[in-house]
Amino acid sequence: MQNKLKIINDPVHGFIKIPHEILFDVIEHPYFQRLRRISQTGLLSLIFPGAKHTRFHHALGAMNLMFKALETLKLKGVKISKEEEKAAMLAILLHDIGHGPYSHALENMLMDDWHHEKISILLMNRLNQEFRGKLDLAIEMFRGQYHRPFFNQLISSQLDVDRMDYLKRDSFYTGVTEGSVNVERIISMMNVSEEQLVIDAKGIYSIENYLTARMFMYWQVYYHKTAALAEHILVQILNRAKYLVSQNIILDAPANLKYFLTKNHFDEATEEDIKRFTLLDDMDVFQAIKDWADHDDFILARLCKIVIYRDFPKSVISSKPFSEELIREKIEQTNQFFNINNGEELVGQISRSLLPYDTEKQPICLLEKSGRKLKLEESENQILFGCMENATKKYILFYPREI
Amino acid sequence: MQNKLKIINDPVHGFIKIPHEILFDVIEHPYFQRLRRISQTGLLSLIFPGAKHTRFHHALGAMNLMFKALETLKLKGVKISKEEEKAAMLAILLHDIGHGPYSHALENMLMDDWHHEKISILLMNRLNQEFRGKLDLAIEMFRGQYHRPFFNQLISSQLDVDRMDYLKRDSFYTGVTEGSVNVERIISMMNVSEEQLVIDAKGIYSIENYLTARMFMYWQVYYHKTAALAEHILVQILNRAKYLVSQNIILDAPANLKYFLTKNHFDEATEEDIKRFTLLDDMDVFQAIKDWADHDDFILARLCKIVIYRDFPKSVISSKPFSEELIREKIEQTNQFFNINNGEELVGQISRSLLPYDTEKQPICLLEKSGRKLKLEESENQILFGCMENATKKYILFYPREI
Amino acid sequence: MQNKLKIINDPVHGFIKIPHEILFDVIEHPYFQRLRRISQTGLLSLIFPGAKHTRFHHALGAMNLMFKALETLKLKGVKISKEEEKAAMLAILLHDIGHGPYSHALENMLMDDWHHEKISILLMNRLNQEFRGKLDLAIEMFRGQYHRPFFNQLISSQLDVDRMDYLKRDSFYTGVTEGSVNVERIISMMNVSEEQLVIDAKGIYSIENYLTARMFMYWQVYYHKTAALAEHILVQILNRAKYLVSQNIILDAPANLKYFLTKNHFDEATEEDIKRFTLLDDMDVFQAIKDWADHDDFILARLCKIVIYRDFPKSVISSKPFSEELIREKIEQTNQFFNINNGEELVGQISRSLLPYDTEKQPICLLEKSGRKLKLEESENQILFGCMENATKKYILFYPREI
Amino acid sequence: MQNKLKIINDPVHGFIKIPHEILFDVIEHPYFQRLRRISQTGLLSLIFPGAKHTRFHHALGAMNLMFKALETLKLKGVKISKEEEKAAMLAILLHDIGHGPYSHALENMLMDDWHHEKISILLMNRLNQEFRGKLDLAIEMFRGQYHRPFFNQLISSQLDVDRMDYLKRDSFYTGVTEGSVNVERIISMMNVSEEQLVIDAKGIYSIENYLTARMFMYWQVYYHKTAALAEHILVQILNRAKYLVSQNIILDAPANLKYFLTKNHFDEATEEDIKRFTLLDDMDVFQAIKDWADHDDFILARLCKIVIYRDFPKSVISSKPFSEELIREKIEQTNQFFNINNGEELVGQISRSLLPYDTEKQPICLLEKSGRKLKLEESENQILFGCMENATKKYILFYPREI
Repeated sequence: MQNKLKIINDPVHGFIKIPHEILFDVIEHPYFQRLRRISQTGLLSLIFPGAKHTRFHHALGAMNLMFKALETLKLKGVKISKEEEKAAMLAILLHDIGHGPYSHALENMLMDDWHHEKISILLMNRLNQEFRGKLDLAIEMFRGQYHRPFFNQLISSQLDVDRMDYLKRDSFYTGVTEGSVNVERIISMMNVSEEQLVIDAKGIYSIENYLTARMFMYWQVYYHKTAALAEHILVQILNRAKYLVSQNIILDAPANLKYFLTKNHFDEATEEDIKRFTLLDDMDVFQAIKDWADHDDFILARLCKIVIYRDFPKSVISSKPFSEELIREKIEQTNQFFNINNGEELVGQISRSLLPYDTEKQPICLLEKSGRKLKLEESENQILFGCMENATKKYILFYPREI
Repeated sequence: MQNKLKIINDPVHGFIKIPHEILFDVIEHPYFQRLRRISQTGLLSLIFPGAKHTRFHHALGAMNLMFKALETLKLKGVKISKEEEKAAMLAILLHDIGHGPYSHALENMLMDDWHHEKISILLMNRLNQEFRGKLDLAIEMFRGQYHRPFFNQLISSQLDVDRMDYLKRDSFYTGVTEGSVNVERIISMMNVSEEQLVIDAKGIYSIENYLTARMFMYWQVYYHKTAALAEHILVQILNRAKYLVSQNIILDAPANLKYFLTKNHFDEATEEDIKRFTLLDDMDVFQAIKDWADHDDFILARLCKIVIYRDFPKSVISSKPFSEELIREKIEQTNQFFNINNGEELVGQISRSLLPYDTEKQPICLLEKSGRKLKLEESENQILFGCMENATKKYILFYPREI
Repeated sequence: MQNKLKIINDPVHGFIKIPHEILFDVIEHPYFQRLRRISQTGLLSLIFPGAKHTRFHHALGAMNLMFKALETLKLKGVKISKEEEKAAMLAILLHDIGHGPYSHALENMLMDDWHHEKISILLMNRLNQEFRGKLDLAIEMFRGQYHRPFFNQLISSQLDVDRMDYLKRDSFYTGVTEGSVNVERIISMMNVSEEQLVIDAKGIYSIENYLTARMFMYWQVYYHKTAALAEHILVQILNRAKYLVSQNIILDAPANLKYFLTKNHFDEATEEDIKRFTLLDDMDVFQAIKDWADHDDFILARLCKIVIYRDFPKSVISSKPFSEELIREKIEQTNQFFNINNGEELVGQISRSLLPYDTEKQPICLLEKSGRKLKLEESENQILFGCMENATKKYILFYPREI
Repeated sequence: MQNKLKIINDPVHGFIKIPHEILFDVIEHPYFQRLRRISQTGLLSLIFPGAKHTRFHHALGAMNLMFKALETLKLKGVKISKEEEKAAMLAILLHDIGHGPYSHALENMLMDDWHHEKISILLMNRLNQEFRGKLDLAIEMFRGQYHRPFFNQLISSQLDVDRMDYLKRDSFYTGVTEGSVNVERIISMMNVSEEQLVIDAKGIYSIENYLTARMFMYWQVYYHKTAALAEHILVQILNRAKYLVSQNIILDAPANLKYFLTKNHFDEATEEDIKRFTLLDDMDVFQAIKDWADHDDFILARLCKIVIYRDFPKSVISSKPFSEELIREKIEQTNQFFNINNGEELVGQISRSLLPYDTEKQPICLLEKSGRKLKLEESENQILFGCMENATKKYILFYPREI
C-alpha cells in the first residue's frame, strides 16, 4: 500500500500529483533531469521575459493533465486499469525526452534529420531496458499501437494533453492571456466513444475557444516577428559555426557541442552519439554563443552579438512575400556598409504559416446526447470555423539596422 | 489638498480608486445605492450560480476602467484636464442609473417604451440639479455633445469601458473563462488620433480576442438556451400579471410594483412615476413571483413556479426556426394534458441573434506607427474577421416537460 | 453505467463535479433551491460590494472540496467505499440546509433558540423520508455517529471543508486576498491515521497560513467595524419589529415573515412552522425593511433607513470597552437632539471576540513520516502559534452622526 | 511629446509600463541585459521547478511597483516631480545591477568581500558617465542622500518595492501561494508624512499579512531544507575549485570564471575585474559544474553530481544544533565508506536564522486619520506581532545517503 503521495508545485496547474512510483523513478533519471536545462520556448524570453520555463516542467504538467483526463473518463464510466493509467502517464511524461538544446529551432541541425520523436523512442527503449520492461505498454501507446486508440489521441492529436499543457503554460509564462486555454473545462468535456476520444457536444465553445487561443499564441507569440527572427538567427549561428569548422577554422565550444559540430554523418546513432546527446543542453549552445561573439569571423560574431545583447536587426512583417529586388538591394547596401561580400548572411526573408485546424487528419469529434458523433466542422453550433480551415502565411524581411 | 483616497474592493479589478469627492457623493445618493439591488444579469444565476453581481458593482468597475484608460492616454501625451477626467468618470458611473428591476428583460414593460437610457438622462438631470450643475460636462459627454468625441466613445461604442467591464465581470462571476477579456492590455493599446479613440495597431490581436470573447459570452452565457428561456419567462410573468390586473383579478404585489402593473400610460414621467421607479428593485419583482406561485391563475402560478423552483420547461435549440405545425402540435398536447385552452402561454419559440461586429457604425480604428489610421477590417493582420461581420440567429422551442 | 457527469461552474474552484445522481436530486429539491436566496454573508455586501454569494453556492463548493479530499485520501491508500463517498458528500451538501434568512445574524430570533444545526437535522430527516432512507449514512456521519470519525471531522472540525470553502469563497468575493486559503495544498496534505483526520507534517505551514488567513478574515471582514454594526442593526430591526407587534402596532410584512414575528413559542416545530420556515428567505426580511423605512415608529424607520441607504451611524473601535458614562452621555445627547426618550435604541456598544485556534477541542494533528502523531502546537516547526491560543476582543461604540 | 508607451509583459503584475525613455535606454545596456542570465533564486528550481525567473524580470517588476507607488502618492496629494519619478524608477531598476552569478550564494566568493551593493554603485556610476549625468539623482536616492527620505525608503527598507516584488514574484513562480503578498493593497495604503514613508492605519492587516507571508517564504522556500542545502553545496563547489586551483591542479572553466578562480586579491576593482565581472553569469558557473562532475578530484566531482543529477545528500532539520559527536561520527562513517580522509567535505551542519521584523531599524510606521504616527508594534490592532520580534534559527545536518 502506497501511503505517500508525491506532489510537485506548479504555478500553472497548482499541484502535480505523482501517483505511481515508476513515474517518480523515471523523473529522477538523468535523461529526464536533463530536461531541466532545455527551455520550452528557446529564445522567446528575449521578447517575453517571463518565458523561462523548461521542458522538464512541461512534461510534468502534461502528465498531470493526463491524470486528470483519465480521472474524468473514469467518472463517466470508461474502464481504465491501473496499468493503462500508469502507461499513459509514462508515455506523456517521456514524449519530449528526445528534445535537444533549443528544441525545434535546432532540430535536424545537430544530428542530420533525427527528428526529436525518433530520438524520444530511442531513449524510451533504453529506459525500458533499465526499468526491465516496465515501459512496454507506455511505448505501445506512444507509437499508436495499443488497441484502445483514445490513449494515443490523448498523447498526440489535435486535442492532446501535450498541446493543452504547452498552450496554457506558454500563455501563462509569456503573460499573453489571449492564449489562455480553459484546460479544466475541455478535460471535463472529454469522453470516449467506440474507444475514440470525443468531446461532449455542449463543450463545443470551449473547443472553438481553444482553437482560437492557439491561433493567438501562434501570431502573438511563436510567430511574433522578433521571436521568429531570434529562432532564425539561432539556426544561422549554428550553420555558420558548422561551416567554419568544415573550413578548419578554430572554434571553441563546450566539448559535447563541439562533437556535433564536427561529426557529419548520423545514419545510425552510435553509443557515443547517444551519450553525448543526452549530456547536451541549452547552456552548451548559449555558452558557445557568448564565446563566439568575439570571434574573428565577422558574420558569426555579429549574429552572436544579436543574441547576447538583444540587438535585433530591423524587420518588417507582411502577408505578401518581399520582392527579390528588394532583398538584393538590402544585401548590396549591407555589403557596401560593412565592406563585406557575404551580406546575404545578414539579410533575409523568413516565413511562417499556420493552419489553425487540420480537417484532413485526426478531426475533433463531438458526441451528442443522442450518442451521435459528428465532426467539429459539421456542428451547426460552431461559430468560428470559417476562419480555421485555411492556412495563413506571413513573411518577415530583416536587414541590419545600420543600412 | 486631498489626502485621502477612497478605495473599494473589487474581486474583478482588485481595487477601485475614487479619486474625486463628487464621485463619492454621487455613489452615496439613494438613486445610486438602489443599484445594489439590481442584479447585473437578472436570472442568470439560475444557470450560473456565481452570477449574483449587481449593477452597482459594474458601474464602479466601469468607472475604474475609465480612470485607467485616461491615465494611459495621459502617459501617451493626450492632454486631459481634471475637469474632463471627473466628467468622464461621472458619466460612466451613471450610465446605468436608469435601469429598472431585471434590467433588459423588463425594460419597456413597466413604463411603456421608456428605454433605460432615457431614464438615465432624466435621473442624471435631477442629480445635476441637486449637485448644482456639477454634472453639466458629464451629461454633455454622455449625450455625445462634447467637442472631443473620444470621451463619448469611451462611454458608448463598440469598445467602450462599459462593455469591457461587463464582459470581464460577467465572465468572472459566471466562471465562463472563455469570455475573459484582457482589459488591461486593450486599455494600454488605446490612443487618441484627431480626438477619436483608436487602438495602437500592434494591439489588433487583443481586439480580435475581445470580439471573440464577446461571441463566446453571448452564445455560452447570455443566449444560453436556459438563460434565454428564464428571461423570456420573466417577461411572460409580468405580461400575465398585467393582463390579470387589467381583468380586475386581484393580485398582491409590493406597492411600488403594483403601481406600475396598474398604471397604463407613461407618455411623460410624472413626479410620482419617478419617485416610485427610483424605489423599485429586483426584490419587488421576485417577491411578487414568490407570492404568485400560489395564485389561482394556472398559467401565472406555473410560470412563477418555474422560477422559484428552477423547474424549467423542456427546450430545444436550433439554427433554423421551428415549424408552426410543430408548435401548434405542442400547444394542443399542452391543452389536452392540462385541460386548458391557453396552452400557447406555456409553449413558444424565442430567438436570439448576434452580430459580432457592426462595420456600419462606430468602426474600431487602428493607428499604425506611421500615423495612418485604418479600420479593423482593413488590417492585413486580422485573423478572425471573416466570422464576425454576419449575424447568427438561434431559435429555442420550449414546452412543458409533461407532454 | 453513468455516462454523464454534471458539472456546475464555480468561479472559486473552477468546476464542481456532481458524480452521484442522488446529489443532483437533493440539489433540485425546493429545500435546497431556497438556499439560492440566502446570502452567505448577510449584509456584508454593504461594505464589500462583491460579497453577494449565496449559501447555495457555498454548499456546492464544500461538497466539491469533500470530493477532492476523499480522492486524495484514496490515492494515499485509505479505503473509502462508494457509499461512504456519497454519504459524506450528501452530509456536507446539507450541512447548512437549516439556515434561515440572514443566517447567523437572525439565528435564534425567528424561532426562539432553534440553532440552525438543529433545523438542519430536522430537514435532513424529512428529506431522508422523501428519498426513502438514502440519507441514512449521511445523517449518521453528520451527527458524528459513524464509526470512522474522519468523515465527521471533514464535515465539522477546525479543519473541515465547510470552513475551507467559506474562507476561500468569502475571501474571493470580498476581494480581501489576505484571507485566501491554499485549499488545494491543505487537501493534498490530508491523511488518515487510526481513522482520525491528520495532516502530513510537511504541510504545517499551510495550516498555519490557514489559521492566520482565518484571523485576517475575522478582523478585516466578519468583524469589520461597519460589518459588525450592520449585523447588529439587522437584529435591532427585528427586535424592534417584534416589540411593536407585541404592542399591537400594525406592521406590514411578507406573510411568512409576519408569521414568525407574531408567533411566540417554538418549543417544538409544528408542521406549519416548518413549512413557513422553508419558504422564508433574505428577500422577505429585506422587503420588510424597505417598507418599514417609512413607518411611523421613529426608531424602526431610522434603523431601516440605515440599511436601505447605507447611512451608518458613527462608530469607533477599541480593544478596551467604552465606559458606561460615555455611553450614557451619548444616549442623552441623542435624546436631546431627536427629542425622544429611547435614545438607547440608537446608541450602543457591541463586541466581537476571536479565539484563533482552540487547543481544547478537536486539535489539529500532524502525522510525521515516522508515523508519529503530534498536535499542531507541539511541533517545533510552528512559527505563529504564540499568537493563536488566546482570544482577542474588540469593542465598537456607535451613535447617531448628528450628535 | 511622447506618444508611444513601451510595455513589457509580466505574468506577475500584468504589464510593466516604461514611461520614460532613459529607463528604456538603461534596460538595453549590456550591463542590464546580463541580468537575463542571472537567476533570481539560484538553484531553487531544483526544488520548485517553476522558479526559473531572472533578476532582469525582478528589476523590471520592482520598477513597475515604484511607478504605481508614486502614482498613488500623487493621488494623495504628495508632490512628486517628473525628475524625481524618473530618478526613483532608475534607482530601483538598477538596485541589483551588481549581482554576480548565483547572487547571494556566491557573493563574497568571487571578489573577496565585494558585496553586491558595492558593485551596484560602482556600475551605476559607470552608467552615469555613459549617460552623461542623467543618473545623478537616482544615485543620490539610492545612497539615501536625497533630502526626501521616502524615496530611499521605497528603494530600501522593511517595506520597499524590492521586497514586495521579489516576495510576490518568488511566491508566484514557486507556486507557494502562502507567500503571496497583496502588493496592490499595500501600495494603495502608502502615504508620506513629514517626508517619511508611512502606511495608512487601516492598512495594518495588509502589513501584518505581508510580514507573515515573508515568514512563510523564508521557511517554506528560501530556507527549505533542500534549498538551503543546494545553496551550501554551490558554495562548497566553488571553494573546492579555488582550493584545487591554488594547489595547481588543472581545472577547466569558462574563461571569465577561471579569471576569478585564479585571481586572489580584489582590494580595488581593476578595469579588467569589472569587464570580466560584467560578462559573467549563471551559465559560466553551471557549465563548469557540468565539466567538473567528471573531475578526478573525488570531492569536487561528487559535489557537482549532486547538482547535475539532483541527487542530494540525506538531511535532517531541527530547531536545535546537532551535537559535534554526531557530526564526527558521520564524518568517520563517510571516510570509511568511501575510503577517503576528507569526509568533512561531504558532511556538515548549516543553519538559517530569521528575524521576521526588525524593530531596531527602519520601523514600519502607521498614519492614523488624526495625523498621529505610530510604530506598527504600538498599534492596538496588531494581531501577530508577538510572533515577529524574535529571531528563529534552524539547523540542517547533511551526510551521504550511502552511510
